[in-house]
Order: sequence, then structure tokens, then C-alpha cells
Amino acid sequence: MTGDAMAAGPSDVLDLDALLSGEELSLRQKVRDFTAQRIRPDIARWYEDGVFPVELAPELGELGVLGMHLEGYGCPGRTAVDYGLAAMELEAGDSGIRTFVSVQGSLAMTAIHTWGSEEQKQEWLPRMAAGEVIGCFALTEPSAGSDPSSMATTATRDGSGDNAGWILSGAKRWIGLASVAGVMVVWAMTVDGVRGFLVPAGTPGVTATPIGQKLSMRASIQCDITFDGVRLGPEALLPGAFGLRGPFTCLNEARYGIAWGAMGAARDSYEAALAYSQDRLQFGRPLAGYQLTQEKLVNMLVEIQKGTMLALHLGRLKDAGTIRPEQISLGKLNNVREAIKIAREARTILGGNGITLDYPPLRHAANLESVRTYEGTDEVHTLILGQHITGLPAFR
Amino acid sequence: MTGDAMAAGPSDVLDLDALLSGEELSLRQKVRDFTAQRIRPDIARWYEDGVFPVELAPELGELGVLGMHLEGYGCPGRTAVDYGLAAMELEAGDSGIRTFVSVQGSLAMTAIHTWGSEEQKQEWLPRMAAGEVIGCFALTEPSAGSDPSSMATTATRDGSGDNAGWILSGAKRWIGLASVAGVMVVWAMTVDGVRGFLVPAGTPGVTATPIGQKLSMRASIQCDITFDGVRLGPEALLPGAFGLRGPFTCLNEARYGIAWGAMGAARDSYEAALAYSQDRLQFGRPLAGYQLTQEKLVNMLVEIQKGTMLALHLGRLKDAGTIRPEQISLGKLNNVREAIKIAREARTILGGNGITLDYPPLRHAANLESVRTYEGTDEVHTLILGQHITGLPAFR
Amino acid sequence: MTGDAMAAGPSDVLDLDALLSGEELSLRQKVRDFTAQRIRPDIARWYEDGVFPVELAPELGELGVLGMHLEGYGCPGRTAVDYGLAAMELEAGDSGIRTFVSVQGSLAMTAIHTWGSEEQKQEWLPRMAAGEVIGCFALTEPSAGSDPSSMATTATRDGSGDNAGWILSGAKRWIGLASVAGVMVVWAMTVDGVRGFLVPAGTPGVTATPIGQKLSMRASIQCDITFDGVRLGPEALLPGAFGLRGPFTCLNEARYGIAWGAMGAARDSYEAALAYSQDRLQFGRPLAGYQLTQEKLVNMLVEIQKGTMLALHLGRLKDAGTIRPEQISLGKLNNVREAIKIAREARTILGGNGITLDYPPLRHAANLESVRTYEGTDEVHTLILGQHITGLPAFR
Amino acid sequence: MTGDAMAAGPSDVLDLDALLSGEELSLRQKVRDFTAQRIRPDIARWYEDGVFPVELAPELGELGVLGMHLEGYGCPGRTAVDYGLAAMELEAGDSGIRTFVSVQGSLAMTAIHTWGSEEQKQEWLPRMAAGEVIGCFALTEPSAGSDPSSMATTATRDGSGDNAGWILSGAKRWIGLASVAGVMVVWAMTVDGVRGFLVPAGTPGVTATPIGQKLSMRASIQCDITFDGVRLGPEALLPGAFGLRGPFTCLNEARYGIAWGAMGAARDSYEAALAYSQDRLQFGRPLAGYQLTQEKLVNMLVEIQKGTMLALHLGRLKDAGTIRPEQISLGKLNNVREAIKIAREARTILGGNGITLDYPPLRHAANLESVRTYEGTDEVHTLILGQHITGLPAFR
Repeated sequence: MTGDAMAAGPSDVLDLDALLSGEELSLRQKVRDFTAQRIRPDIARWYEDGVFPVELAPELGELGVLGMHLEGYGCPGRTAVDYGLAAMELEAGDSGIRTFVSVQGSLAMTAIHTWGSEEQKQEWLPRMAAGEVIGCFALTEPSAGSDPSSMATTATRDGSGDNAGWILSGAKRWIGLASVAGVMVVWAMTVDGVRGFLVPAGTPGVTATPIGQKLSMRASIQCDITFDGVRLGPEALLPGAFGLRGPFTCLNEARYGIAWGAMGAARDSYEAALAYSQDRLQFGRPLAGYQLTQEKLVNMLVEIQKGTMLALHLGRLKDAGTIRPEQISLGKLNNVREAIKIAREARTILGGNGITLDYPPLRHAANLESVRTYEGTDEVHTLILGQHITGLPAFR
Repeated sequence: MTGDAMAAGPSDVLDLDALLSGEELSLRQKVRDFTAQRIRPDIARWYEDGVFPVELAPELGELGVLGMHLEGYGCPGRTAVDYGLAAMELEAGDSGIRTFVSVQGSLAMTAIHTWGSEEQKQEWLPRMAAGEVIGCFALTEPSAGSDPSSMATTATRDGSGDNAGWILSGAKRWIGLASVAGVMVVWAMTVDGVRGFLVPAGTPGVTATPIGQKLSMRASIQCDITFDGVRLGPEALLPGAFGLRGPFTCLNEARYGIAWGAMGAARDSYEAALAYSQDRLQFGRPLAGYQLTQEKLVNMLVEIQKGTMLALHLGRLKDAGTIRPEQISLGKLNNVREAIKIAREARTILGGNGITLDYPPLRHAANLESVRTYEGTDEVHTLILGQHITGLPAFR
Repeated sequence: MTGDAMAAGPSDVLDLDALLSGEELSLRQKVRDFTAQRIRPDIARWYEDGVFPVELAPELGELGVLGMHLEGYGCPGRTAVDYGLAAMELEAGDSGIRTFVSVQGSLAMTAIHTWGSEEQKQEWLPRMAAGEVIGCFALTEPSAGSDPSSMATTATRDGSGDNAGWILSGAKRWIGLASVAGVMVVWAMTVDGVRGFLVPAGTPGVTATPIGQKLSMRASIQCDITFDGVRLGPEALLPGAFGLRGPFTCLNEARYGIAWGAMGAARDSYEAALAYSQDRLQFGRPLAGYQLTQEKLVNMLVEIQKGTMLALHLGRLKDAGTIRPEQISLGKLNNVREAIKIAREARTILGGNGITLDYPPLRHAANLESVRTYEGTDEVHTLILGQHITGLPAFR
Repeated sequence: MTGDAMAAGPSDVLDLDALLSGEELSLRQKVRDFTAQRIRPDIARWYEDGVFPVELAPELGELGVLGMHLEGYGCPGRTAVDYGLAAMELEAGDSGIRTFVSVQGSLAMTAIHTWGSEEQKQEWLPRMAAGEVIGCFALTEPSAGSDPSSMATTATRDGSGDNAGWILSGAKRWIGLASVAGVMVVWAMTVDGVRGFLVPAGTPGVTATPIGQKLSMRASIQCDITFDGVRLGPEALLPGAFGLRGPFTCLNEARYGIAWGAMGAARDSYEAALAYSQDRLQFGRPLAGYQLTQEKLVNMLVEIQKGTMLALHLGRLKDAGTIRPEQISLGKLNNVREAIKIAREARTILGGNGITLDYPPLRHAANLESVRTYEGTDEVHTLILGQHITGLPAFR
């Protein structure tokens, strides 16, 4: 049992909690309690068995964390900081659960909320906010993880005139939650460039197959999807999204949440290692009393504090409406990179016991391998920032 | 498909192969072929299912790698360098398989060969060399991974006189292969200090339970063992081993093999990443053509070459009979630490695909978490070397 | 020319400047201008010649940065954040100049202001604030850099009764500015524990010898001091300071300023490397357009932004009166450690040109070697924090 | 006093000395003694004053280390391993002295020996081997440190026919020893591509100006050279060298020596830190007895041993005549990169004392900044190796 019961103390030497409002602290506590009661007790089993606990979806809806930062249509309408705090606490439980919340809220619901028609919003958002319908977001393709501009999935007109529908063909990969989704937001190339489509579960020609034999994020689902001449009505089109700006806006939302979430996994790893080192004796002294252990713990703490401060800064910018994509890149790059180092270092303090699911650090480290890759690898964000500061693109 | 078909080329820029004899190269090729044919095709499934393939034991016996460096009693009597090369090739397949070979040959068989009576040797060694009997080595205890001197398992005399047997009580943890072992080498505290005992499978009062929910070394087995008043005859005692020198000699044998094996996992990770980066296009160019990818590959290569040279140096010292424990500590510390960095870095080149068992780097990285811990953590070997060079112990 | 003319732009991707008030920005600009006009033009020569520019003292007084955070007695009475911003801009010029300001304000003047008598304050503080008198702070001793509790310099009573003076004997080392100081704050062991004394320049028996052949901080002065039976009157004693709490309070003040200052050296190094990489062509393209260069620049930027945010957080805590020593330790540890990495990395972008005083990064890296050591090494701050989070001291 | 008096002991835990012949050990001892007697006593002063001790040139000639690996013409004709051992011992003294030996032997003398006419060889080599004439090697130009193919210095025919001389125009930068050289090997672009020329000291139109205000390699000299319509006779041309293969052959010779030399600086840094940590007490215990110190020392040792093994392997390949450029790149890249880390880490153990010239680590670290840059930066060697292993160039 880590994380849930800790006060500021050794995880918040800098008193960053004092920067949060009472309402924010109260929201955080609520999500922290949820993590303690609904995620921690079963996460080892879900992870071992490779199971995403779909039963959590309505509970997370009730908790108010699905589409959390959106207004109206049954959405909670909370601030970006609130959303970040929730992401942090959920990922202190498991990255897979936080990933569901990100896919649902930052990707699928944000796409519908931002570019959907009134009918689309009313049809999907309330049920998605409640966790009754799971959404997914199909952008990445098998042959181009970090280069969406080379999209090979196509949508062509099916007939002509205003009532003309669409035929969707192609394949997507690494699509979170697709096999349990009630609705898919699918991005495809048209003669007018990239457009988005809503594809309800059960549409003929759509096949979503979970990717198996994973070494990461086993309590979540990622799928291969094939679209085999899928016929969609005209109402499937998201009317407001044109070009890659559409999905990129959603990616930025998700990246923002990740910057917070990763620090949750990091903090939980640190707290697990700290607690273990205080209990475990070696040569008659607690491990925590040795210089080599303290060095590790302190280095973890320092980066957790810096990363948390960074996430909070991004949240305040986002709530002020001034945040820019390169700022989010900086947060995602740093916080995931540091979180993975922290989780790995924490794991070494646990000795042999650290390789089991009895302790979270190695599970977090494994999960963060996925988190590091999706929504932009270290290299992608490095080159985004590199272009920003030098004015010179170095992607190719 | 990695590793098996590669010539010196990009994995041996320094031409270290030229330091090996024709016989050594031939032995290596034989084991490399075994890995390609018997480990690679099924390792993903074994790992996913958490299964140690016991059927490999007799095949490894036939391959001549069990108790490989021992003479007589059906053992192959090969050199330390031969043994190292075999460990490297097997761990290029999976650390779990190499671990079995280490536990069997370096730990259990070495203990019997070095301190056993003539009867004990004849009873066990030929069948162990053939892989008909699996051995295990029970030293580590639940509460003291890195401090065997605080051993709590006891062996007390059962009766008196020359025919007096022993009563064994206590618990061990992290004992490789214990649940499938035909014979256990068990270390216990007696009134005369630590002594070793041979405990055949099925001895009443012995319970070996595999540790589950592992995130590492899933194609191997580690067990909790309890000894509940286990009655042993006088012939169970290893007559030659007195004190911790007994098990420590075996640990040094195992550490030597690990220094080689880890470089196998590292090389396989590098080769997988190199091959992937040459195939995978991004923005129309192979990943391998980008500076950021080349930097990673080159850094991996450099450490693989240095680590391999170090392992070979240790092997030559061992064959010359001049090797010292602190030299082995240096090799184990460096080679596992570097291997884990290499496997992690290789995995990042694979993008999302790198989190599945379709590619070896993340599996190797996960396995090496165990390898890093057993037979002395980084901290233990650092402090052994620290004491050696400064003359001052800093363990406590 | 770096640093002075840059707007937020590539050095402030996170818009941290928006967290500063107009008054703070204006103060910063004033100090930045001073650095551009009075430090940058001559720093290479001062550094090469090993000269501290004493003529800057009154100018810095006029600039309002001496004893900047103190109230009354001619002191500027600015906030902790103001002081931090000034330290950052001065150290963007050179650590040696910022060190003078720290020694003067955080150490010598703080000691007098906090524990001095009314007479002592009136005698020294106004002239020190004006830069007419330079102060120094003599705590460290030759044989114990990181362990002031083993202090060997003694002060014994000279005579008896209220008019009894003191006899000071011993030696200090690494005392900044001692050879040009008009007044020394000297800490010595008495029968009542450690006490502080004010020793005016020219007091018989005091010898301050600059330490020569330095590879760091060459535009500053550090001295060996010997006290050879120095007779002091009763008025030399600082009445308010008892025990190590006295000097430790000052050290915390100085460490606070260092956390800011180091980020100034880091930012200047980054800006120099960025500018150079944009100008310098290789294979016909600016260095800044290569992936390997962008990776370096981005990693520098990320740590500069985090370190600056951390310094500002400490400043706000200090101004709120809630700051605690372990928080300052975290800031000093992190910011100097990261600054030295940044300066070293920046230097590699400059190629051969980077080894001369024409460009600041290698000078900053060299200076930061001193900064890393004084006011607590990495190890000292790691163990302070380690004790704080684990509850266990591991110093010995 | 470091380095000179140490036996294998703590600097050679792996017994690498056992891989050396008696003759090799004896040569090494001779150079080690020279370093102890002629470099260590004065190096601090030379470094502080920025003086290259030209008086050492004939002494180094007598020691037999100038053009050491060359045959005939008064050259010592030693093996590559001998040359490497000498480089290591000299750089344990100071990189500047080893640099002189490299420039003299690997660059200038190798150029003349390999591509010179019989007359040129007889004129220069014997006096250069004796240290009576210092040579330099002018390849690098101000605007292209890492890209010699963009050479702007030109040599045009002066007249026509067999007796036509040359007119040399342009500029070079970072040319070691140029201002004290008796003969310069100058590379210039002709209508037939790059050619080499021998330019005796005093030739009209040649100006060599030492680069001042250096923070590295202060006991050596690097110059700017201008060639202002320098008229050379036909005999100035090196007849055998065509294109960049000419200078690149010499660079490989020099890089080979650097791979050895850097380990000398590293070993000396380590030994200085080890000795200091054993003497210096903190809290009543030698620094060497603390875990944090031992961790540093052990990490240094491990890399010194690996780097030394690597250098020796390269030497054996070179003596066997099978060495390839990418192997040397690997050695130069690794050994300098690790040496600089080791010197920096060693310096931290020395506390404040480590910033003076009383102790070698910070001087070595500063010197290695130059060594890291010349004869190919980390980036250049990374990309050379990257191309070798991937088959794809990523330089541009």
C-alpha cells in the first residue's frame, strides 16, 4: 500500500501542495481514494492476466474524470489543473487506467466536443462522460508511428450529393480500447485532406483485434483495426475538423494529461521504494540508512518535485488559455523520461522482491515504456522543441 | 530473427572474434544454432505463459553445456571461455534459459563436484550433466538477500554418533528451479557454522512454491522453499564445505557466467534494434539513417564490445587459474549494468512494436532486472570493489 | 555577446517571465544591463589574469545588490525573489562576481544584521551596502571542508570581567575576498561553543593569503587566513549568535542565492551555444540544424527551465517566510549540478573555439566547480535531504 | 605525487599488466619515470603561466618517443603498443606534453615518412626524432573544424614546368606547436585536389600566432596561421600524398595515440582522488571509507580498466597490421569521453582543494576538452561508426 495515505511529507519536500486550492486538494483526495480502493487491490491480477477492467468505466464516470475538462453535454467542466491532478492520482494506480481516461476524455470526447455536430455531441458525449460508452481514437497506422502525415487509411465518397456517405478502407494500430469501444473516432485521408469520422461499434467491415503478448500496459487494451470497405452515412463525418490540426489538437490534450500522469507513476514508485527501504534491514540497519540508498531516493525526489512543478505550471497556463504546443512537448518529454528513470531506480531498491507485481515500481517502469512512445516519442518532442528554439527543422 | 545469422560485421567492429580459437568459434556456433532452433521460436509463448521449458534440460545436456567446465563424472570438461561463450549465446535467447544452465552447472553441480563425497558425485553428477536431474541451490533467505551471513535456516543433529542425521528447518527464497529440481543443495547454519546438504526431491517436509506474478524471467522458475523439520540422513552432508566459503565459491562461478551471458542479451537487443531501424522507414528514410538513431546504436555497440572484451579477459584469467573474486565482481557489475542500459535503449528504437514479445529488447531488459539482483546487486559489487581498492569496508 | 539582449524566446519556452511582476522584471533588466556593460567586456581578461575587480564593489553597491534583502542600515530591503533575480543575472556574467555579492550580502552582512549589536550594525552595514567596505566570512577550515562541527580555530578570553577581550588562534581556508576585506566575520570555538567575531582589516596577527594557481573562479579571490594570537576587544563579539546555528543561518542565505545564480551561468552557456550553432556552418548547414545539436540544446533548455522554476518557487517561499533548510538544499543541489552539466554540454557545441575565454561556457563550467563545492557539496545536500525523507542520518 | 609510484594494485584490478611483455613494461617504466621527474614537478607552473616547455623536446627525443613507431631515419622503430604505453604515461603527466609527442610523431613525422621524398626524409626526420626540430601539421581551418573537405587554403603553381614552385594562401587554426615549429606540414587545395607541403620556419609570408586566453591545454601551444602569398620551391611538395587520404592517414595515427593517452589522464585523476580520499578525514573517517566515495572510485576504475583494455586491443591490431579506421574511431570516442567523465568525477572527491593546480584531476579534465575536440569530436566519430554499422551516412 503506497501513495494513498501519504501527506505532503517526504514526497513533497517543496510544499507544492500549498500551491493548490482547497477545492483542488479535495478533488485530488477523492481520486486518490478511488485509486486506493478500486485500483490498487486488483491491479496485480489485472496486469498478470492482461485484462482491462471495463467495469471501472461507469465508476470513473461517476467519479467525474471522463471528459473532465469539457463543458456541457454531461461533462464535469473542471479545470485543466483538476484534470491533471486526477491523471496523476490514477496513474499512481496504473498507467493503463489513466490511459483509458486520456483516450476517453482527451482524445475521443475532445474530438467530438470540438468538431462534432450538435447531434453528434448529444448522441455521444453524455453517455461517454458517464462511462456508459467507451470511445477510441484511431490515428496511428502500422507503418508510421511518428509520422501521421503519411496516412494510408482512406475515406472516399459513396455516391454523390449531400446524402452521399463514405467508404472507409485501411488499417490502424496501437488504438487504445478499440475492442471495447462503443464509438471510434477515425481519421482518414479524403480528397480534401484528413477528415475525422465517428464509427459506432458493430459497423460492418470493422475489425478490432487486441495486440497480445505485451510487456507493458497489460491492464489496458491496444488494438489493430482493419476497415474493410466500411460504409458510413454522411452523418459520420465530423464537420469541424479539417487536416491534421484536428487530431493534433486532441494529441496536445492527451500529452498534457500524460505530463501529469507520469509523475503519479513516479511518485508511487518512489513511495514504494522509500517505504520498503525503511522496513527492510540489511546488516541490521534499514536500507534507508545507507548512503547509496539515500542517494537514489533523493535523486528520485528531486525529479518528482521538478516534474510536478512543471505539470502544475502547464496546468495554470492551460487554464489561462495561453498554453502553446511546444510547452506541452517540453512537459511530456521531461516528465515521462524522468518518470521512467525514477521507476527503474526505485525498483533497484526493492531487490529481488521488486520483480514481482507485489510492488509497483517495475510495473510502472514497464507501463511507461508505452507512455514514452505514444503521443510522441522523446525524439519527436526533442525535434519539435529543437525547431522551436533554433528555427530549423531537423526531422528529416 | 536476430543474432543467429549475423557474422562479425556490425556487432563485432573490433574483430574480437579473431581472439577466439577455431574450436571456440565452433562451440559458439553450435550453441548459437541451438538458440536459433530451440529457444527463439517459442520463447515469446513461454514468457507470456510463465513457463520454464523443462523439456530443454536433456537437450542442453546433449548440447554439452551442463556442468560444462567440470571434469569427470560425465561432465564435458570444457574451458571457462567455452562456458562463457555458451552462456552468451544462450542468454541471447533468454536469460531464463541461461539461468537454468548457471544454476545447474555453476551452482548445484559445482557444489557437489567441489565438496561432495565420491558417492555424492557419482550419484548426481552424471545425471545432472545429462539434464536428467535438475539441481537447485538454496542459499538466499527471505529477509536477507544480500547478506548471507545472517542465515536463519538451521540444521541440527538428529541423534548422536556417526550415524546421526540432521533436522533442517527454515525458509529460502528466490531459489531458481527448486520446484522442478531432483536435488537441492541447501545451505544451513549448524553449531559448526554454515554447512551444505543435498536434499533429494520428495523429501518429506520440503515445500517449494514458485513465485508468481513476475515481471522478469518469466520463462524461468524461482521458488520459495520451506523446510519444516526435514529429516536427513548423515550422507546428506557435503563433507568438504565449511562456512560461507562453500556457497561463495559457487557464486563466483555463477557470476563469471553472468558476465558473459548479459552481453548475449545486450548483443541480441542491439541486433534487433539495428535490423528494425534499417527496415523501418520514417519520413521516407530508414530510421537507421537518422543521427539520433545512430547515436543510440553506436553507444550500444561500444559498450557491447567493451563488455565482451572484459568477459573474455576474465575467461582467460579463469582458464589460467589466476582469477580473483574482485575481478569477477567487476565483470558482473559492469556487464549486467551495461546490458540493461543497452536493452532499454534498443527498445526505444522499436517504437510501439518494442513493447510486445515480437521483439526481444524489452524482454531482455525485464529479465536483466533479475540478473542485476541475483548473485550480488550493483551495490554489493561496488562495495566489494570499493573495499578492495581502498582497503576500507563500507558495507555497514 | 550572449544573454543580455535576449527576450523570453528560446530561453524561456515556458513563459516563466509571466510569473514575475513588472517591478521584478525591471530590476532584472537593470542588473542584466550592468552585467552587459560592466562584466562581459572585461571578464576574459580578469579571468585570465586572476584578478578580482575591486572597483566593481561600489558600483554594485550603487546598483543596490549588496545586502539586497536586508532592511535598514542603508540596505536596499528588496525581496528574496529580487535578490535571486540579481544573482542570476550577475552569474550570467561570472560566478566570481556573484560570489562576491553572496559573500558580502548573504554571509557577512547577514551575520552582522542578524546577530550584531546596534553599534556593530551602524558601524559596518551602511558602508558594506554601499560597497565601500568588503566583508568576508571565515568558517571553513583547512582540514574539514564539509564538517564545521570539528572547528579548530579558538577564541579564548583575554582577561576577565566585562571588559575582557578575546584571543583568536587558528586557520581558515577558502575564505572568499578575505585579502581585500575591510571586515571579517570569523567563527571560532569558545568554552561556550561556537561564537562569531568581527575582525577589522589590519588587526595584528591576521594574515590572509590568496590561494593561487586556480582552475576555477579566477575572477574572484579565496584565501587562506591565519590567526596568530589575535587580540580582540570585547566589542568584537557578535552578541546574538550561539553555536553553529549562527553560521548555518548565513549559509542558508547564500545557498538560496546560489540556486538562482547557477541558473544564470547555465542560461548564459546555453545562449552562447545556441547563438554559435546558428551561425556556424558545417557541411553547409548551421550546426543548429543537426539532430545531435538540437538534442543537446533541448536537454539544456529543459533543465534551465526546471531549475529556474525551482529557484522562483524557493524565492516565493522565502518571501512568504515559510522556507525550510532542506528546501534550499534541494535547490542548491539540483541547480548547481544541472548548471555544470549544461555548461559542459554547451561547451561541446562550440568545438575548438569553446576552449578559449572568447566564449563563456567553459569558464562557467570551471567556475561552477567551486560553486558545487562551497556551501555544501552534492554529497552533503544529498545526505541532508536523505535524512529528511528517511529519518535516518547517513553522514558517518 | 600520484601515478608514478603505483604498482598494479588498485589501478589494475584486472591484472592487465600481465598482458604486457617485459620489454613493454620496461619501456613504460622508463616513460613513467620521465613523467615523474620532468613533468610533474613543473606542470602546475607551466600550466598557470601558459608555457610550453620547449626544453623538453630534445629530452623526449632522447627518451625515444618522437616518431616512436617509425622505422629508419633515426626513428626508434618501436611497436604501436610501445607508442601507446608511452602516450599513456606522458598524458598521465599532462595532455599538452602528450599532444606535442602526437603532433611531432603521428602527424608531422608520419606525413614526411609516408609521403615524403628521400631528400625530405633525410632532411627532417633525424632532427625531428631527436627533438631538435619541432614539426606541426596544418590541416584544420577557421571555418570548418570537422569538415576538412571544404578546405579554403590554396596552393597554386608559381611559374610553369618542372621547376615551377607554389604560392600558398589561406589560413589555418588550432595548429599545435606552430609558433615553435621548425617545419610545418601544410595541407592545401590545388587544381589536382588536396596536396601536402613542407614549409620551413621563417618562410616569408607565414605568420603563426598562439591562441591565448585558453582554459585547456595551457602547457601546450595552438596557433592561428596565415599564409599570405607564401612562395615555395617545387621541393616543398610532398610527392606521395594525393587528396584527403594523406592527412587522414596521419589523423588515424594520432587518434590511436589519443585513445591510449586519455587513459593516462584518467588513471592519474583516479589515483589522485584515491590517495586524497584515503588521507582526508571527514567526521573522523577517511573519505575513502564512505559509500558515496567508493561508488565514484569504483565507477572510475571500471572505465579505466575497460578503456585500457580497448587501447591495448587496438595496439595489438595495429601491430598485426589489421587495424581499420572505424576501430580507431571507437577507441578515440570511448576513451576520451570516459576519461573526461573520470577526471571530472575524481575532482569532486578533492573538495575545494580540487580546484587548484595542486591536484591534477581538474587540469586533466580541462585538457581533455581539447582532446575531445581535436582529431574528431564525439559526434564525428559517432557518425563514422554509425555509417559503418548501418551502411547509411548521417553526416548532413
